[in-house]
Amino acid sequence: MNIFQKTLLIALLFFYYTAAYAQHPGLLLTPAGVKEIKKNAGKYPGFDNAVAEQKKIADNALHSTITVPQPKDGGGGYTHEKHKNNYYEMYAAGIMYQLTGKKEYAQFVTDMLKKYATLYPTLGLHPAVKSETPGKLFWQTLNESVWLVHTSVAYDCVYDYISATDRQNIEKNLFYPMAEFISNGNPANYAVFNKMHNHGTWATAAVGMIGYAMGDKNLVDMALHGSAKDGKTGFIRQLDVLFSPDGYFTEGPYYQRYAIWPFMTFAQVIQNKQPELNIFKYRDGILNKAVNTLVQCAYDGEIFYLNDALKKTYQTQEIIYAVDIAYKNDPANTALLDIARRQNSFIVSDAGIATARAASKKDVKPFTFKPLILRDGAKGDEGAIAILRKGNTCLTFKATSHGLSHGHYDKLSISLFDNNNSILTDYGAVRYLNIEPKYGGHYTKENYSWAMQTIAHNTVTVDEQSHFDGNIKVSSNYHSDLLYADVSNPDIQIVSAVEKNAYKNVSMQRTTALITVPDLEFPVIFDIFRVKSDSAHQLDFPFYYRGQMVSGNFSVQKNTSELKTLGTKNGYQHLWVEGKGKTDQDNATFTWVNDNRFYTITTKCDSQTELLLTRSGAGDPDFNLRYEPCFMLRQPNAGNHTFVSVIEPHGLYDLIKEVTINYKSAVASVQLLQDNEELTVIKVATNSGKNYLFATSNSMSSENKSFIYNNTKISLSNNYYFSEIKN
Amino acid sequence: MNIFQKTLLIALLFFYYTAAYAQHPGLLLTPAGVKEIKKNAGKYPGFDNAVAEQKKIADNALHSTITVPQPKDGGGGYTHEKHKNNYYEMYAAGIMYQLTGKKEYAQFVTDMLKKYATLYPTLGLHPAVKSETPGKLFWQTLNESVWLVHTSVAYDCVYDYISATDRQNIEKNLFYPMAEFISNGNPANYAVFNKMHNHGTWATAAVGMIGYAMGDKNLVDMALHGSAKDGKTGFIRQLDVLFSPDGYFTEGPYYQRYAIWPFMTFAQVIQNKQPELNIFKYRDGILNKAVNTLVQCAYDGEIFYLNDALKKTYQTQEIIYAVDIAYKNDPANTALLDIARRQNSFIVSDAGIATARAASKKDVKPFTFKPLILRDGAKGDEGAIAILRKGNTCLTFKATSHGLSHGHYDKLSISLFDNNNSILTDYGAVRYLNIEPKYGGHYTKENYSWAMQTIAHNTVTVDEQSHFDGNIKVSSNYHSDLLYADVSNPDIQIVSAVEKNAYKNVSMQRTTALITVPDLEFPVIFDIFRVKSDSAHQLDFPFYYRGQMVSGNFSVQKNTSELKTLGTKNGYQHLWVEGKGKTDQDNATFTWVNDNRFYTITTKCDSQTELLLTRSGAGDPDFNLRYEPCFMLRQPNAGNHTFVSVIEPHGLYDLIKEVTINYKSAVASVQLLQDNEELTVIKVATNSGKNYLFATSNSMSSENKSFIYNNTKISLSNNYYFSEIKN
Repeated sequence: MNIFQKTLLIALLFFYYTAAYAQHPGLLLTPAGVKEIKKNAGKYPGFDNAVAEQKKIADNALHSTITVPQPKDGGGGYTHEKHKNNYYEMYAAGIMYQLTGKKEYAQFVTDMLKKYATLYPTLGLHPAVKSETPGKLFWQTLNESVWLVHTSVAYDCVYDYISATDRQNIEKNLFYPMAEFISNGNPANYAVFNKMHNHGTWATAAVGMIGYAMGDKNLVDMALHGSAKDGKTGFIRQLDVLFSPDGYFTEGPYYQRYAIWPFMTFAQVIQNKQPELNIFKYRDGILNKAVNTLVQCAYDGEIFYLNDALKKTYQTQEIIYAVDIAYKNDPANTALLDIARRQNSFIVSDAGIATARAASKKDVKPFTFKPLILRDGAKGDEGAIAILRKGNTCLTFKATSHGLSHGHYDKLSISLFDNNNSILTDYGAVRYLNIEPKYGGHYTKENYSWAMQTIAHNTVTVDEQSHFDGNIKVSSNYHSDLLYADVSNPDIQIVSAVEKNAYKNVSMQRTTALITVPDLEFPVIFDIFRVKSDSAHQLDFPFYYRGQMVSGNFSVQKNTSELKTLGTKNGYQHLWVEGKGKTDQDNATFTWVNDNRFYTITTKCDSQTELLLTRSGAGDPDFNLRYEPCFMLRQPNAGNHTFVSVIEPHGLYDLIKEVTINYKSAVASVQLLQDNEELTVIKVATNSGKNYLFATSNSMSSENKSFIYNNTKISLSNNYYFSEIKN
Repeated sequence: MNIFQKTLLIALLFFYYTAAYAQHPGLLLTPAGVKEIKKNAGKYPGFDNAVAEQKKIADNALHSTITVPQPKDGGGGYTHEKHKNNYYEMYAAGIMYQLTGKKEYAQFVTDMLKKYATLYPTLGLHPAVKSETPGKLFWQTLNESVWLVHTSVAYDCVYDYISATDRQNIEKNLFYPMAEFISNGNPANYAVFNKMHNHGTWATAAVGMIGYAMGDKNLVDMALHGSAKDGKTGFIRQLDVLFSPDGYFTEGPYYQRYAIWPFMTFAQVIQNKQPELNIFKYRDGILNKAVNTLVQCAYDGEIFYLNDALKKTYQTQEIIYAVDIAYKNDPANTALLDIARRQNSFIVSDAGIATARAASKKDVKPFTFKPLILRDGAKGDEGAIAILRKGNTCLTFKATSHGLSHGHYDKLSISLFDNNNSILTDYGAVRYLNIEPKYGGHYTKENYSWAMQTIAHNTVTVDEQSHFDGNIKVSSNYHSDLLYADVSNPDIQIVSAVEKNAYKNVSMQRTTALITVPDLEFPVIFDIFRVKSDSAHQLDFPFYYRGQMVSGNFSVQKNTSELKTLGTKNGYQHLWVEGKGKTDQDNATFTWVNDNRFYTITTKCDSQTELLLTRSGAGDPDFNLRYEPCFMLRQPNAGNHTFVSVIEPHGLYDLIKEVTINYKSAVASVQLLQDNEELTVIKVATNSGKNYLFATSNSMSSENKSFIYNNTKISLSNNYYFSEIKN
């Protein structure tokens, strides 16, 4: 390229750049998109419904009095919901103005923005003191950022309609002060804006999007590269840090869902405004990878409950944004079209119409839910989430880093889904989002005292203390480590991980495998939990099952007229002790029924093992907890101890047809044959007389491990061995 | 008609009669039906699936070894399920033989019947002693009757295939002994066969159907007219007695569903074999009326939980039988076609194919769920069930007779459904049908100690004793009485009923209205419960709500570290006391959230009123109970006392979209203005400043009652008054 060509290119780029920068609408909707949407009206019912929904919101808004109330209430309260509703109305009206050209819509946005421009300069910090980063319109700045993300889109849509005087007023009295407040409003906001955290993503997206909308390069650059514009913080740095190389967001899928919204929305805006940044190609296409990973982190369309989490489905608008924008910017990712179909809703934007059109084609293939190992950490070296799947059975295994402020203390915990139901359950978070009487809609205190604590999870608690003693600062320094994982064989999916820091002088290793054999109706779980210590400890190992207990092979002393709690702290104060049992057999079995299927845990035990039946719901003065039952193994005085269990879905309980089949587990016994630093060998026998041998490596070494069984030397391959054996 | 004509007619009738009697198949399937089914193959997917399902069962049976085990297990156990499975296999094979002509199917039925013919004569009473009427193949004779109903159809289908010798063997050693056993096997069976009870219906249907199949008029006549053939008992007498004139079955909808199966099946057989009996016209078409009533006794396709009841939907095969046969025999009843569509399954019979064809037509109209008063008692004078419905809100009100052995002690109890959820709940029965480890699949002991007791229901318990002291013999002598009911105005649906016998010297009256006013988002319930007594009593008035408590206007002393039971007997031993509250206000409010909607009870109280929060699940050594929460009003020392409550569904809690609207009830207060033997007047005020006056008559008299409000005389019309008022 000669100097002339270079100059020309720069000039062209500059022209293109400034042209894109100045164009309205140009954030989520562009003139080309508007044209496309109009042309295809009536063709794609899901998209038409989305437009109709926006139209309904906008038309309702036109017929209502504009109210911009003095901020007062927390989440779920009147002023909170009103300000939220207002941005949805402006957003809808902005879009409808673009689609119809009706000035009433644009005037509505203008009028409301002017009211905000009058109110905003008068506001101090929000009176509901429940956050370390209070907002002005809302109880926390986070909601202010969300407000601005939406309002930026509305402003962009009606920008050319508003008079220069009005624009100046609105920008000067509302948008600039708000951008300043979000990015620098008080020391805490500055920190959040420059933090590697989903609140930081919302903050940078908000400031960046209003920057683009107003054509202010300074705000945009701060948003992209941090307050100091040095790239050490800001949106692009977040892309480096907040996702692992597998597209896993360290806070967990629930917050991945929430963070993906500003990530994808802002990225789409960047792509429209500064295509030269190639934001969707950044870090090997990390954003689209994150969307696919998010979609994988679900069972039956419901996002996994890992760390703080409430019920969320594919129908949430944030996942609709994510799927549409991901597809639009990587049309090769056709797997998402099946998800778009299930959503059957779209964003009214360039991305939405493109996705709707593609999803309407006949050749859309079903999305493939795969077994996956999702590494945690920016470099992928901070443990992992494992997802084992076969047919309709799915098991999650958590061996990650802490997950920031929303992390739970549950290293090596599992959850099990089967038959479209939650079978072994993660409690999730204790929060009634947006219900004002419930602690302002915020996480309740039981979220910390119960939901975050180790005993609330399907993993081992030592000496009634949570992992890292429930101290986030300590926990955040560490992560579990994968020992190995192998999901290459659909019939034998295995993950093994270690946690050496959760307790002093106690190390833990869990190996969980999803095994499919012809002898058993459904895939079963082999679960080996090794605890190592030089001294004696009490080990509590709960299984939070959903459903109704059917039977056990042990007798239970049930507390029928009085209940007491299992303990007084670290979550134990929230568990009622319903009963205790013991068995003199080598295995305890516990069967429950969930929906139309039975489940049995068959677990090795000894004369010391206590079998506890507990239920959450104690220590709950404000009626915030759910009552959920638990089958808990307690090993009261254990140094080195290995729990070995098989969890089997079985049979049929059809109450409608009144048919019951195989209410008894097909598993006859589990035995621990060998257990040392090298490897663990177990044997599982079934009632039909089959025997299975399973061995797993307990340490990584280059040599091939082996063991002797029935005078035969058996070697592990890829760290494990699994086979049916004669006896 | 001259003598010749008469003779000819009689001869023709006789010929027709005997021809029908002798024809095979002739029970549920006839040669005409077979032809029709073949002709329409591939036309009606729901019907094709039903045929495919029968074919699958039959083909699987052909490829399995016939096993007729020695009876041993209770419900859900191996031998129980095997004998059950066997009759389904014979039934399917019989039908498939008719549809395909393949001899393998017929041979299978023959072979299995021969095995039964060998086994049956060797059997004594069933070893699992859990019933007063033990069977031989099954733990209770009831299941033996069900076996025979199905097997009769199979036998009828393959009758012409089986050799005369084999028929003789099978009839002599199996069917005759079984018919004899069912109708007369031991004194208890004789009583059941001649009893006005659903077990009697199964018994007569079984004996009658095998009678028709074998061409034995004696058995048929016994079935139709009772053992003595005098018409004082038997199937036809059951039609007189077991349904009320409104087609309500006295045991309740759950057993109506179960009883409708032999009723409709046997009736279809009678219609095919003895059309001159005009069985479907009998008692003004009581059978078809009963089917329509059954379908009405459901919310969102799920049968109401009144008396002993488990989950049952329209998808149950018995309701498929009922709908198909009802439609076939009264094609004017096109309302059922919408139900048939929802079922999307059919019986493979003449009735099934006729219904499938009609349901496939384009002009099928939605079934109309109506507010209904369903009188109880053969004459319709033993109280009633009231069903109040508006939009998606539905309330049931029980003021009936006891309901035989499956009746609960819950006079004047209500249940509420809204938004496709159960909101105020009837616990139903404690039973794990067909799960052997759960008391053999039978009703567990908690069914009596808890589910039947008054305190388990949304009605008043006096002095911690159940209605009629939980004594069925006493309870069966009485019934509640409707005072009046008016569902003619969709916006003001009212039922008022009295119960004067449940307690000595205490009478109760409940008036419940489903009110729709423009001021409130959804229909609301006005509920007035009057208790009258000359002496002081403790009144407990529970509301078993489903969902999570949100808030109350009273403070609660919550038991956070220890739970005790509310009492020691009459169901109280099954309730944990979670907390107690009091208020110094005139109203207590209690709000909970269920799914995406809020519900608030606003109830009048005084300084004595205790507000209890309880939960079922205590006193349950075998883990048979569910944990269900309750908001309970306790009036500790009351003579005459009137509870006045408004129950309001309100707002929106959309966790997916994160939108919360109106979590506060719109009801500001409820006031009792006047309350005497003549009438009760209440006033309900809303937060938007509206006031509503509601008055209801407390006694029937010819004069028009009136009361004075704000110096104005207001007269009741049709026993009530409802209007918005100025203040």
